Amino acid sequence: MSYQLWYWSDIPGRGEFVRLALEAGNIPYRDCAREPDIGSKGLIDDMLRPRQHPPFAPPYLVADGMTLGQTANILYFLGERHGLAPDDVAGRLWVNQLQLTIADIVAEAHDVHHPIATSLYYEDQQTEAKRRASYFRQERIPKYLAYFERVLQDGDGWLAGGARWSYADLSLYHLIFGLLYAFPHRMARIARDYPRVFAVHDRVANLPALQTYLTSPRRLAMGMDLFRHYAELDDGPSGDSLG
Amino acid sequence: MSYQLWYWSDIPGRGEFVRLALEAGNIPYRDCAREPDIGSKGLIDDMLRPRQHPPFAPPYLVADGMTLGQTANILYFLGERHGLAPDDVAGRLWVNQLQLTIADIVAEAHDVHHPIATSLYYEDQQTEAKRRASYFRQERIPKYLAYFERVLQDGDGWLAGGARWSYADLSLYHLIFGLLYAFPHRMARIARDYPRVFAVHDRVANLPALQTYLTSPRRLAMGMDLFRHYAELDDGPSGDSLG
Repeated sequence: MSYQLWYWSDIPGRGEFVRLALEAGNIPYRDCAREPDIGSKGLIDDMLRPRQHPPFAPPYLVADGMTLGQTANILYFLGERHGLAPDDVAGRLWVNQLQLTIADIVAEAHDVHHPIATSLYYEDQQTEAKRRASYFRQERIPKYLAYFERVLQDGDGWLAGGARWSYADLSLYHLIFGLLYAFPHRMARIARDYPRVFAVHDRVANLPALQTYLTSPRRLAMGMDLFRHYAELDDGPSGDSLG
Repeated sequence: MSYQLWYWSDIPGRGEFVRLALEAGNIPYRDCAREPDIGSKGLIDDMLRPRQHPPFAPPYLVADGMTLGQTANILYFLGERHGLAPDDVAGRLWVNQLQLTIADIVAEAHDVHHPIATSLYYEDQQTEAKRRASYFRQERIPKYLAYFERVLQDGDGWLAGGARWSYADLSLYHLIFGLLYAFPHRMARIARDYPRVFAVHDRVANLPALQTYLTSPRRLAMGMDLFRHYAELDDGPSGDSLG
């Protein structure tokens, strides 16, 4: 029986990190809430029904009788079970550590457009969002990307070293993809500082195992999601300064 | 050789989740940055020196030749190695999932007092903090605590079920401890809604294995930390409303 992925049907969101691992690993799965007779309403019903290990939020994966929530936890399971991470304990923990660091900047990228409350519209927290975005662009993006650049400097082009990608490389790809979508001016200005990070982005985008997925209708467009593009939250074409 | 924990010397912070696991598990460790000849400067030096798997930030644990960063990742290692989580795969992943959910609310609790930038003083983002705090108290705390209450409703008093605590129970204890410190009025008003969550807090506080630590000078006082108490970010004594 194939795995069941449960995530909102209309955004890439955190589900995309799981989808990329399933697709690149050639692992059969159902994307349940995207089936017409299920949808987002079916997702909510499924999430609320009694079960031994309820998830706090989507995404979650039903696999081997387990319900696994939390993106990094799902990926840890897939990595170990399907060889999407190194086999040894040290390698598996290292990839998990990298994934959790990616999760941290993803959460920060979300809070750029929702710095006050997820329950409010962006427009109702736009003033605070502009202020937070300035620091995110100028301090946080460089801090994280410099870290991943440092990690990559001793390897063979993949985060965990070795000749093959791990699920953390797929997630780094989607992080950069999302940052390029949300902050195109800023990212264009700093790309040259992180050549190894952008090389991972390009290598993942060209992985043979992902080509069918990346050009298929299964891949959802960016939009009202973790990564959002609002021109006022990016640099201007000629840059700006803190304030 | 005992493990080396590296974390800031003057705050409980995220290091406390690791300390509680080490102490409750009776696992020998050095709290390196608290040794007088090392200190926070020694921590910064150590973090910057070249190594195979550099941590992004403290806490990190040097164990068996590995450097393990990210709190939940350190705890996953300790849980598996020292029996601080169930033995089976499903149980280990479930405790990891719970830990990651605790990590999410901890990050949100931090951002209540730093909604714009970690590099700014609280006083320079106090207006935004007041607004975020209102939603955190009235929407986010109940959402998370209701979830943990639901998880606890079918077990024997511990998050992962069974007769013994796991590291997620220790972390839930510290989460509640931190929320009680930061939002005493709010927490007093809602405690009756989450009896099982508060029972975990009380059971962990009374664990025989933790008594020496909890009353020792090794345990740092709360302060300028993840959980901060500012009266203006809590309810008033008679409650308040969104806005």
